[in-house]
Amino acid sequence: MAIAEATIVPLGTGSTSISKYVADIHRFLQEEKRIKYQLTPMGTIFEGDLDVILEVIRKLHEIPFASGAQRVSTMIKIDDRRDKEASMEQKVNSVETILKRRDV
Amino acid sequence: MAIAEATIVPLGTGSTSISKYVADIHRFLQEEKRIKYQLTPMGTIFEGDLDVILEVIRKLHEIPFASGAQRVSTMIKIDDRRDKEASMEQKVNSVETILKRRDV
Amino acid sequence: MAIAEATIVPLGTGSTSISKYVADIHRFLQEEKRIKYQLTPMGTIFEGDLDVILEVIRKLHEIPFASGAQRVSTMIKIDDRRDKEASMEQKVNSVETILKRRDV
Amino acid sequence: MAIAEATIVPLGTGSTSISKYVADIHRFLQEEKRIKYQLTPMGTIFEGDLDVILEVIRKLHEIPFASGAQRVSTMIKIDDRRDKEASMEQKVNSVETILKRRDV
Repeated sequence: MAIAEATIVPLGTGSTSISKYVADIHRFLQEEKRIKYQLTPMGTIFEGDLDVILEVIRKLHEIPFASGAQRVSTMIKIDDRRDKEASMEQKVNSVETILKRRDV
Repeated sequence: MAIAEATIVPLGTGSTSISKYVADIHRFLQEEKRIKYQLTPMGTIFEGDLDVILEVIRKLHEIPFASGAQRVSTMIKIDDRRDKEASMEQKVNSVETILKRRDV
Repeated sequence: MAIAEATIVPLGTGSTSISKYVADIHRFLQEEKRIKYQLTPMGTIFEGDLDVILEVIRKLHEIPFASGAQRVSTMIKIDDRRDKEASMEQKVNSVETILKRRDV
Repeated sequence: MAIAEATIVPLGTGSTSISKYVADIHRFLQEEKRIKYQLTPMGTIFEGDLDVILEVIRKLHEIPFASGAQRVSTMIKIDDRRDKEASMEQKVNSVETILKRRDV
């Protein structure tokens, strides 16, 4: 299980808004049941088997091209930990737990 | 107003866990009142004046060094839009609005 | 043909130096003949078929684990342009050509 | 002394080519004498005092706006090592030295 983040941005489309492309990507993700994902203001975060995550991001990268974009810039950040089970929720929780403990 | 994401990671610390360092960073952010921020499983997202955001991230980058790290890898992604007011909330909302509209 | 950059960093190894891991990765790349690559001070840049590039980076991501790392942070940046043939060399050349032209 | 990489990309310009903007940025860097830099096929790498690097990148981020862009996406990756003097050249050399040594 790995956690990864992807940002997929079309270049040269003539519009500063990219929310239409992000919505296309999330429409696709709603059908894809194999990985958990979470939309953030700066991208989409995934949790699951790394090979499945990369296979899905590879497909997402094609979506802006299918909508007419001629150049797509995709950034992928992988956090892969093998010494313990990691999840999106656990990563945030472990930070918040430390913050709360120190408050006492 | 810009939106930015930062991931600040110490290298060579001898521990695979970095949540202690992230908690130090968020402790600092709780005192810093000038920018909005949001913890995600892959980093921290900021909203505010770009100069203030960069000034704050510059200080956050020093925090792992202060805790003994000898090498820090920091990634900053800036999304700066000048044609309309952008916010973390609005970016997510505009994607979700498109998804809902298409569902009808 | 796409251009991509990858930075593959082990976390928690107890050593601030990562050149040994980067050398392992480049040893692997010397045997892999399907894509062009270039070492930079901040990562490795690839040129070739995007599916092959991602397949190779997926293998490179395993290399620090094989050397004992328990957590690996990998960053991939893809620049994929479909309106014209792009190459690492051409991207740098087109900037330098503009700079020279303006000098006249 | 730190090493950093920046990729500065205008969105929504209506043109898939961004070499004009990169040339504007390198024109600016030719006048700026305080930091070393190197153009790569995927961005620009800097070496120098981290505060100066960030001050310069902050100015570079404004350049596409000055040329009419309405949205700019900037990615900064900082590699900051305090246990020994690092340079762009030394980072590449230490990997190549390991590769050559193993070849013997």
